[in-house]
Amino acid sequence: MIAEKMKSLVKGSSAIRAMFEEGKRMAALYGAQNVYDFSLGNPNVAAPKAVNEAICQILKEEDPVEVHGYMNNSGYEDVREAIAASLNRRFGTSFTGDAIVMTVGAAGGLNVMFKTLLNPGEEVLVFAPFFGEYRSYVDNYEGVLKVVPPQTETFQPNLKAFGEMITEKTKAVIINTPNNPTGVIYSEDTIKEMARILEEKESQFGSSIYLISDEPYRELAYDGAQVPYLTKYYHNTVVGYSYSKSLSLPGERIGYLVLPDELDDAEEVRGAANVATRILGFVNAPSLMQRAVARCLDEQVDLEFYDRNRKALCEGLKKCGFSFIWPQGAFYLFLKSPVEDEKEFCEKGKEYHILMVPGSSFACPGYVRLAYCVSYETIQGAMPGFEKLAQDYGLKSNGAGRTDEN
Amino acid sequence: MIAEKMKSLVKGSSAIRAMFEEGKRMAALYGAQNVYDFSLGNPNVAAPKAVNEAICQILKEEDPVEVHGYMNNSGYEDVREAIAASLNRRFGTSFTGDAIVMTVGAAGGLNVMFKTLLNPGEEVLVFAPFFGEYRSYVDNYEGVLKVVPPQTETFQPNLKAFGEMITEKTKAVIINTPNNPTGVIYSEDTIKEMARILEEKESQFGSSIYLISDEPYRELAYDGAQVPYLTKYYHNTVVGYSYSKSLSLPGERIGYLVLPDELDDAEEVRGAANVATRILGFVNAPSLMQRAVARCLDEQVDLEFYDRNRKALCEGLKKCGFSFIWPQGAFYLFLKSPVEDEKEFCEKGKEYHILMVPGSSFACPGYVRLAYCVSYETIQGAMPGFEKLAQDYGLKSNGAGRTDEN
Repeated sequence: MIAEKMKSLVKGSSAIRAMFEEGKRMAALYGAQNVYDFSLGNPNVAAPKAVNEAICQILKEEDPVEVHGYMNNSGYEDVREAIAASLNRRFGTSFTGDAIVMTVGAAGGLNVMFKTLLNPGEEVLVFAPFFGEYRSYVDNYEGVLKVVPPQTETFQPNLKAFGEMITEKTKAVIINTPNNPTGVIYSEDTIKEMARILEEKESQFGSSIYLISDEPYRELAYDGAQVPYLTKYYHNTVVGYSYSKSLSLPGERIGYLVLPDELDDAEEVRGAANVATRILGFVNAPSLMQRAVARCLDEQVDLEFYDRNRKALCEGLKKCGFSFIWPQGAFYLFLKSPVEDEKEFCEKGKEYHILMVPGSSFACPGYVRLAYCVSYETIQGAMPGFEKLAQDYGLKSNGAGRTDEN
Repeated sequence: MIAEKMKSLVKGSSAIRAMFEEGKRMAALYGAQNVYDFSLGNPNVAAPKAVNEAICQILKEEDPVEVHGYMNNSGYEDVREAIAASLNRRFGTSFTGDAIVMTVGAAGGLNVMFKTLLNPGEEVLVFAPFFGEYRSYVDNYEGVLKVVPPQTETFQPNLKAFGEMITEKTKAVIINTPNNPTGVIYSEDTIKEMARILEEKESQFGSSIYLISDEPYRELAYDGAQVPYLTKYYHNTVVGYSYSKSLSLPGERIGYLVLPDELDDAEEVRGAANVATRILGFVNAPSLMQRAVARCLDEQVDLEFYDRNRKALCEGLKKCGFSFIWPQGAFYLFLKSPVEDEKEFCEKGKEYHILMVPGSSFACPGYVRLAYCVSYETIQGAMPGFEKLAQDYGLKSNGAGRTDEN
């Protein structure tokens, strides 16, 4: 007797669960150390010690009623001001605390934004490949998700197709950089061109098109790569941030939205985001965690851990002859499947106890996602299996693939 | 450019904010100690010390990746089992951990349930007076809220009207006991008769009607009053619980749903609630707080504090000649306005620096809500003002009102 809409969602969810169960089944059968599960995007690096210290300090120093209490639905004012000031220092922006709405993670923030913005039937564009949950977030508010096809040479967004797909019904665009599942960082040139197109279309249709930048992986950028701060390029930009990865606090559900002064109807959007936070049942971002992250704005997880994995995995896979874009950020690698049907490749991988997610789940068949937020030993242990996989598909060892050159 | 639906919600929200701002304005003008703000339902008693101790212990003892990490969207299995066992001990139920879904507070839990259950146009019944946010929670999923008129003699639910209002479109019923705004606990007789009606209507229409019991005030029951555990009376009962009041953790957003085996399609409902938790952007209830409440299942805030306020307020108001039902639970008192237009009464109260919420906000005009989760001094300080108010309306001092006898 559940809602009709939920039935297919439950079915889709069973597929994810099935994969998870498969991992557990294989671990029981072959021993956990002999199963190489690259299917889960769960941070496996501990939060910086400063976070736990901050939590205990807060409980000692601050008023207990206030620490665990209600506040403005948008969050504690001092926390919002501290975050704005930190962003201003880092990115040369000029946000005030009013621009910040504390959220129950980035997923909570995106839901708040779509509740705030979307009328039924309005369109939200997203670039393939993309995190599949966006589909539900948009559907929750009867929006229509439109998928811009991928540009597989570089996995930068396909801006030609993008420009052609914007209509008078386009209310928002989601971007995600560093990207899940590709690990690619959208370049400044890409961002500038995207902003140009959006401005042109806003003026053509007399509409407001909100660019919603989902940034849980912002701090996971390797080799000093810069991740452009989007609000500086396009006026109608909303940033959704999470501490899930930057401070390894995914279970704590703590993040924020940035709603800059430059937004069309900024005051109205902020007011509505405040109300949406309340009525969707979030009410506010968890209070103690708000206060904890405000004390840890300069902290970050050990990036070196992920980077070591990244290098080991990339070098190993390259040696086997696999093709992929060398990831610049996040903790994902998007491998070109040696056969067109990447699900067959995933099945074959299981023979060597390697678990990967088909690209179809990210609207990009022909590829598979490897999440390298695993132990270093998992990567090392998986390599003989990858070598055999490469041999099975006749890949030329150490051969330079089409897309492995950067 | 916000969504049409949000516009009226933002307007409604401005009224609440205006009241809040009025309190701040008056405090600045007359001094905070001379303003008697009974408008806010914010717990003002600190969480038991054991909660903060548990948090720091967990951070010391448990695996940091797990403590702050993702888990099953329904919550940590050990936490869910501990909660089920605690409920079984207290209420003679026989829940397993599978029946528990950890939620972002009770508000999060209600949203998860309505997402899980409601098809557009399906009806949800609620008994006036009721917490106004229910209207939004139901509307979020295009449900239609139907308000059962109040029964002002006792503020027990009006079951005659209830029975007549159930149709083949009725998917759920919300009840809230101890009640916000009346402080009334629904009696076992009430519950039994309600269950009888629901079973009769389910059989008449061949439908499933879910009784959703919103229980954030369960532990705030005075004079040893018993709050019947609803799942024992009606098979299709879902309990929504929160630690906001019982442990004074409203800002932490931690609670749970109980989805018993006896529910129609129990497995499907649980699966859908799990998915709804994820796609609405909650993802999971805050992880550290899940683990903390599991260590504090036998803890409770200092009930004596609220009870002292309750007695002082009730005795003082009775002496003035006001009419009301003596509250048995929660921290609200629902006063009969001495004039039909209770908004006029609220305005008049401001002359004596007393802030109250009109009953219209709870679909019950002619009454006002006083939240006595304030300092004892606030209650003492307000009494001269209440005396003058009573005189202004010609109430007979110490007179027994129509509804003040229990």
